[in-house]
Amino acid sequence: MPAPLEFFFDFSSPYAYLASHRIGLLARRHGREVRWRPMMLGPAMAATGGKPLVHVPLKGDYARRDLPRTARFHGIPFEMPSLFPQVTLAAARLFYWLEEQAPERAVPFAQSVFKALFVDDQNVADRAVVGRLAAAAGVDEATALAAIDQSDVKEKLKVVTADAVERGVFGSPFIFVDGEPFWGADRLDQIDRWLASGGF
Amino acid sequence: MPAPLEFFFDFSSPYAYLASHRIGLLARRHGREVRWRPMMLGPAMAATGGKPLVHVPLKGDYARRDLPRTARFHGIPFEMPSLFPQVTLAAARLFYWLEEQAPERAVPFAQSVFKALFVDDQNVADRAVVGRLAAAAGVDEATALAAIDQSDVKEKLKVVTADAVERGVFGSPFIFVDGEPFWGADRLDQIDRWLASGGF
Repeated sequence: MPAPLEFFFDFSSPYAYLASHRIGLLARRHGREVRWRPMMLGPAMAATGGKPLVHVPLKGDYARRDLPRTARFHGIPFEMPSLFPQVTLAAARLFYWLEEQAPERAVPFAQSVFKALFVDDQNVADRAVVGRLAAAAGVDEATALAAIDQSDVKEKLKVVTADAVERGVFGSPFIFVDGEPFWGADRLDQIDRWLASGGF
Repeated sequence: MPAPLEFFFDFSSPYAYLASHRIGLLARRHGREVRWRPMMLGPAMAATGGKPLVHVPLKGDYARRDLPRTARFHGIPFEMPSLFPQVTLAAARLFYWLEEQAPERAVPFAQSVFKALFVDDQNVADRAVVGRLAAAAGVDEATALAAIDQSDVKEKLKVVTADAVERGVFGSPFIFVDGEPFWGADRLDQIDRWLASGGF
């Protein structure tokens, strides 16, 4: 069994949301799985001096035009959130708790977080919202909410983030294919050929 | 006759070089011309706080891997210059002088500047190199070299750059299609569909 694609992202990243709609099918076409790796982009950005795109003059205005256009280009539903960017710490921690407790529910939960944020204009920084998404994914809401503050869950997200930065991740989405790094939703076409031909 | 695509770029931008290999054919497929608009990216970057990619920690290392890979992906010759980035002021000024004096020679000259920088590892900040490229494009070398310091030529480049910043250009390449802005070599596929369907 070939190694899964490693899909690093911050839930608050709209380009990661766009990639999340396409990466599963892409991987399956080549007999691969996707290992979803939500992380906190803040520490990674600290290393590069990066800032959230929408806070940068000119670039932010462009992104607000490019995002819906790119979503239309790929036929992906998208609404720019009213509140942006959002701190997605609780959602990322819950992902790793689910990965331990009910692994088959982790990716559907992650997809529901992206949908809440980039389609349904919800505030996923609000724990009540994240708790409802966990309940919809089939786990007990109160247990899930309590898990957000468990020290092993907090530690897991820190380790994943530190590991990502160590491996050179500075943006979202960031995808490794057999160790080869690809940054950005724009690189899925290269990943497709890379998987087809084992590099180029 | 539909309006030409407006292709803004800094000669020092390797992603603009990659786009320059593809934009002409793309435009012709849709019955369009390309209006090449070399500019100085420095003033545009000042507005966004941007820095040359290769000077950013992590991102620079990634770019040094992504650039040759993206070139291979599209079958474009590419060698990362030993000296990078380069100040491409002289080349940009000469482009506009040629555009006045011998318009049919301006784009071939621009293509030769890109090739000198990103294939033949030459220092295009060196006026002697730019002079030879102008001579190869069919104009008198001494006249071309003198033109670099002509006040009207200097002013033209300043006006183009200021106009680009005014229109929201903050990176390179930056392409307008009937007023719609597209940033990056990665957007040529969207431009292709935009031209085919008049927007999407």
